[in-house]
Amino acid sequence: MKPSIPQGTRDFSPADVRRRQYILQTIKSVFEVYGYQPLETPSMENLSTLMGKYGEEGDRLIFKILNNGLHEKKDQAKLNEEWAKVLEKPYSATAITERALRYDLTIPFARYVVMHQNDLVFPFKRYQMQPVWRADRPQRGRYREFWQCDADVVGSNSLLNEAELLCIYQSAFHQLKVPGIQVKINSRKVLAGLAECCGALDKLTDITVAIDKLDKIGWDGVEKELIGRGLDADKIAYIQQYLSVTGNTEERLVIMETLLQASDIAQKGIAELRTTLHYFEQLKHPEWTSELIVDFTLARGLNYYTGIIVEVATTAVKMGSIGGGGRYDDLTGLFGLKGLSGVGVSFGIDRIYDVMEELALFPVQVDITTKILFVNIEPKAEATILTYLSQLRNAGISCELYSETAKFDKQMKYAHRRTIPFVGIVGESELAENKIMVKNMETGTQELVTITALSNLLS
Amino acid sequence: MKPSIPQGTRDFSPADVRRRQYILQTIKSVFEVYGYQPLETPSMENLSTLMGKYGEEGDRLIFKILNNGLHEKKDQAKLNEEWAKVLEKPYSATAITERALRYDLTIPFARYVVMHQNDLVFPFKRYQMQPVWRADRPQRGRYREFWQCDADVVGSNSLLNEAELLCIYQSAFHQLKVPGIQVKINSRKVLAGLAECCGALDKLTDITVAIDKLDKIGWDGVEKELIGRGLDADKIAYIQQYLSVTGNTEERLVIMETLLQASDIAQKGIAELRTTLHYFEQLKHPEWTSELIVDFTLARGLNYYTGIIVEVATTAVKMGSIGGGGRYDDLTGLFGLKGLSGVGVSFGIDRIYDVMEELALFPVQVDITTKILFVNIEPKAEATILTYLSQLRNAGISCELYSETAKFDKQMKYAHRRTIPFVGIVGESELAENKIMVKNMETGTQELVTITALSNLLS
Repeated sequence: MKPSIPQGTRDFSPADVRRRQYILQTIKSVFEVYGYQPLETPSMENLSTLMGKYGEEGDRLIFKILNNGLHEKKDQAKLNEEWAKVLEKPYSATAITERALRYDLTIPFARYVVMHQNDLVFPFKRYQMQPVWRADRPQRGRYREFWQCDADVVGSNSLLNEAELLCIYQSAFHQLKVPGIQVKINSRKVLAGLAECCGALDKLTDITVAIDKLDKIGWDGVEKELIGRGLDADKIAYIQQYLSVTGNTEERLVIMETLLQASDIAQKGIAELRTTLHYFEQLKHPEWTSELIVDFTLARGLNYYTGIIVEVATTAVKMGSIGGGGRYDDLTGLFGLKGLSGVGVSFGIDRIYDVMEELALFPVQVDITTKILFVNIEPKAEATILTYLSQLRNAGISCELYSETAKFDKQMKYAHRRTIPFVGIVGESELAENKIMVKNMETGTQELVTITALSNLLS
Repeated sequence: MKPSIPQGTRDFSPADVRRRQYILQTIKSVFEVYGYQPLETPSMENLSTLMGKYGEEGDRLIFKILNNGLHEKKDQAKLNEEWAKVLEKPYSATAITERALRYDLTIPFARYVVMHQNDLVFPFKRYQMQPVWRADRPQRGRYREFWQCDADVVGSNSLLNEAELLCIYQSAFHQLKVPGIQVKINSRKVLAGLAECCGALDKLTDITVAIDKLDKIGWDGVEKELIGRGLDADKIAYIQQYLSVTGNTEERLVIMETLLQASDIAQKGIAELRTTLHYFEQLKHPEWTSELIVDFTLARGLNYYTGIIVEVATTAVKMGSIGGGGRYDDLTGLFGLKGLSGVGVSFGIDRIYDVMEELALFPVQVDITTKILFVNIEPKAEATILTYLSQLRNAGISCELYSETAKFDKQMKYAHRRTIPFVGIVGESELAENKIMVKNMETGTQELVTITALSNLLS
């Protein structure tokens, strides 16, 4: 049998893991500097926790786990009945499947907050970096197992949170050295105001879904979509006017205040954008180079957002958004805890990886683990080399002795393919001198040094 | 609906995650110092990769994933036929379930090595820290989702690997400061030699299974077990003699050489133990305090071991083994790649966590993330505090401003419950002086400092 892995899943080789860890560690350290705390939830949730939370399409994409020991169950007639329903429609029969793999990190977070509401201290700021699973059709860049990386705060209405989350994006991409980062923000309240002003508040979703496609299908496409969704020419003209506003940030904010003056919610949205920008200006660091853009055409597909929304992309690579988020007024209401407002952002780890790979942004050190390989050619030197290993490792320096007395070439090839930067040779003469011949694998130069000097060199 | 999580799974709160991360990071850094490289495999494997690898009991405990879109399949008659078989016996019908959650890290590792044999450079030393899933009956200390933490090397027969793995145990538990660690080693070859010498080589498994229980059931129990497995009195007397050997390590090795002199394999096993100990002596660090004990009564349940075996426990807590491993001659043969010898060890993360919790071994710093909370009481100070946050964060110091102007007491309570060690107060007088009143939450003392002094204090 030729072994394989399930479609849409991946093995991560040592080099892959190190590079992914570099991204995750960088983001994690930024989260922590902003006071976010780590949380981990189980891979499996009760199916009832997940079903009905992601729409009909989402329900279909949830990986369900078959109950164990079905053949031992007494009531086989009941099982057959449930099975017939599974075949009839996408049906969750608890007799057959009670558990499922988590589909995202947001619903488990909401479930956690509700279950632990009495132990938690609010505002509760948590980050979570874990895999999620979706039975989607696999394609380039879309996997059935992939990591999400979210930070959210619940139990605070302050726009300081929004501003800090913008800082988190800037700081993380600054540290990862990703160029051309654009962080776009808008407010769902402004979009609601637009719908209100053109007399189509009941069509808010239709309008946002259409606007969300502007990037891809242009104005003509959006217009067609709006017609199809039953908006009349006046309303469409109003929306076009909204989408066409130009000028610098302040100019556009002022124009919007006028254009949407009939809507209280729009005015509130614009005021929130101003406050968020104001906080951000005070919090930001002068070295950050990412652009922060108020973009009134930003809509974001998900309907649970109610305030500031945000999306991140880079102009350096054609890749779509590599992060996004926003405020939602009621995260935990689904599970019976009303009135907890939240705001959060997400990093698209797989896409960030692809961007960094394409732009060759991973530092060389990320690919290095073992710093020096001692070749195993002179049996008399073995005991001495072992004490060297002990000394280096005690100083935290990663090192190896090739574990067999193989041919020199084979050992050098091992060092090369493992991208080990130095090779240590202890032959008879080095042994006599109590020294090590150290070869720099990149430059090819050699140097005779003591173990103390070597330890200093590699520290 | 009152939300809950599946039986046998756990949420990890921020404090739990940080403590677990402390253990995992410590072990990871040790693995890397010894030249082991990280590998990650998918949570799901093809069911065919897993089935038949863990015995009948193992097969039953594998979590199988229901195929998606069953209701859309054309051939419903076939599905019903397969379903009948699922109900009849624990049967894997690919039409119903093709994928399953990984049961351990060893089989996925073997599968990975076979799939990538042409790209890998041998010896291949990898470590892997990932969750695994088993549909076991949940009980105290036994979960349905738990982490494994393994290091293995394949493609090298050198006993240097065994010695380095012993060092990895010593170094990791030294760094974690776990007291009373005993690392026991033996060789499966010595046990095979015992079976050979008492003329019961065909009963090797029966003998090891019985000996493995010595700790729990004592000699009387083992004797009963051996009788039950059909061994006669002579053989049992021989085994008793073997198990009763006493003296220091060297004395016991010499007695064993004599007792098992008729067996070549036993002599080879004893020689391997000697070589491993010899390497270990050269590699070890003087500060390590763990005991390394040659224990001829150590058997280990798993049958795939063929050479040195090892098990770790602590005398400080009643807990059973917290690590174990050994050499296996043919890891990848199951997947068609013959002749690759491997050796590996595993850390029992959940039990190590419990030991460290019970002995209060987690350093205080592990529980601290945010170093200082600025209370939000004086609106005029907000702008200044935001620049302080920016300055501290840029120096990598984790800090927060309480995001609302809540009551002072509420904010102090937040700092206390989050175990934030310092609170910064900027009232009107501090603002006028360009200073911060810093309160040490543990001692209660207060000090008036500049932001630069504060940054130095917290760095």
